[in-house]
Amino acid sequence: MAMSEPWEEDSDPWIVKSVTRTFENAWFVVDTHAVLHPHGAEGDYSVIRPRRHAVGVLPIDAEGYVHLVGQWRFPLGRYSWEMPEGGADPGEPPLACARRELEEETGLKAGTYLPMLEMDLSNSLSDETATIYLALDLTLGEAKPEPTEVLKRNRVPFADVVEKVAAGYIRDSMTVAAILRAHHMAVTGLLPAPLASAMLGHGQGGI
Amino acid sequence: MAMSEPWEEDSDPWIVKSVTRTFENAWFVVDTHAVLHPHGAEGDYSVIRPRRHAVGVLPIDAEGYVHLVGQWRFPLGRYSWEMPEGGADPGEPPLACARRELEEETGLKAGTYLPMLEMDLSNSLSDETATIYLALDLTLGEAKPEPTEVLKRNRVPFADVVEKVAAGYIRDSMTVAAILRAHHMAVTGLLPAPLASAMLGHGQGGI
Repeated sequence: MAMSEPWEEDSDPWIVKSVTRTFENAWFVVDTHAVLHPHGAEGDYSVIRPRRHAVGVLPIDAEGYVHLVGQWRFPLGRYSWEMPEGGADPGEPPLACARRELEEETGLKAGTYLPMLEMDLSNSLSDETATIYLALDLTLGEAKPEPTEVLKRNRVPFADVVEKVAAGYIRDSMTVAAILRAHHMAVTGLLPAPLASAMLGHGQGGI
Repeated sequence: MAMSEPWEEDSDPWIVKSVTRTFENAWFVVDTHAVLHPHGAEGDYSVIRPRRHAVGVLPIDAEGYVHLVGQWRFPLGRYSWEMPEGGADPGEPPLACARRELEEETGLKAGTYLPMLEMDLSNSLSDETATIYLALDLTLGEAKPEPTEVLKRNRVPFADVVEKVAAGYIRDSMTVAAILRAHHMAVTGLLPAPLASAMLGHGQGGI
């Protein structure tokens, strides 16, 4: 196959003939599209459309420790340690959601929010999007988890969290990407030097 | 909220009373569970269960260039530049899927596959899991995309791809995480020194 120009984009090659809502609940809908594929064949394409935009917030304190929350993830049937995350309601700015989730889940307030990443979480099946912030200059208030959330909290050296990502123990895609982006920012001068030094200097594993 | 021991885990706090399959097609099913929440209330939890395990493979050549593929992502209604990705059928080893997808989508064969990441892509809604490899020692064969795939190909300096991740232009969660993990591996001595040097030395932006 020939190489194209870097970042060249095609226009939409799909033809949609009709759309039927085939599932819906409070959290997502499934829209089934009768389509002509780019190569001409008729078919169906069912798209999962979550009702809320995913928001993640990675709190790192001045000592270079990451504040994580742990919970049982029902869809996976597994326990999962992650950064605080939630869903922005339609029209709610992602930053407002990040502030709310951080305070509800950890009791922390952040003086600084840095945008870190924009992601599409599973783009062959769904249109779910995510915005991730780095939260710095932390002060402690009081945690107020929602009644459906049974959360543990922890505070772990950044290097140990990186190790848990590399080992496949921390597996949540938003948390994995956020931790690795924070590492990238720390080693490339995108964070205040004392913070970067605190993040990269702790823990047992060399990072 | 009190701090727990690092990485302490709770056991399953949910009670499932019944399960109904409320949607299915060739790619995923939705199972709706009648549950008792951890706090005791009755409710429903609908879980999206993709039929295939997601596999991604990030090919980086000896000159430190990343080989990407571009395609229109129907669920998003947007064009997307990504690493080669596909789905492993039940029972298919992820590595076999990675080899197949790399060759089908780019024509490349890799002499070395390094496991990079294990992720859960959207753990509040689905049980979709992903395995990501770094593919090195590349040789060129002939690309054989599946008929439903209309792919562009490109070869871009690693530093330029990192910039596109940071800028929010590359947004696919698996590709974002893979690029940042490759950066982490390159700067921490986890890759051969000549390769790391090639990856970190190219492009305009400092990485």
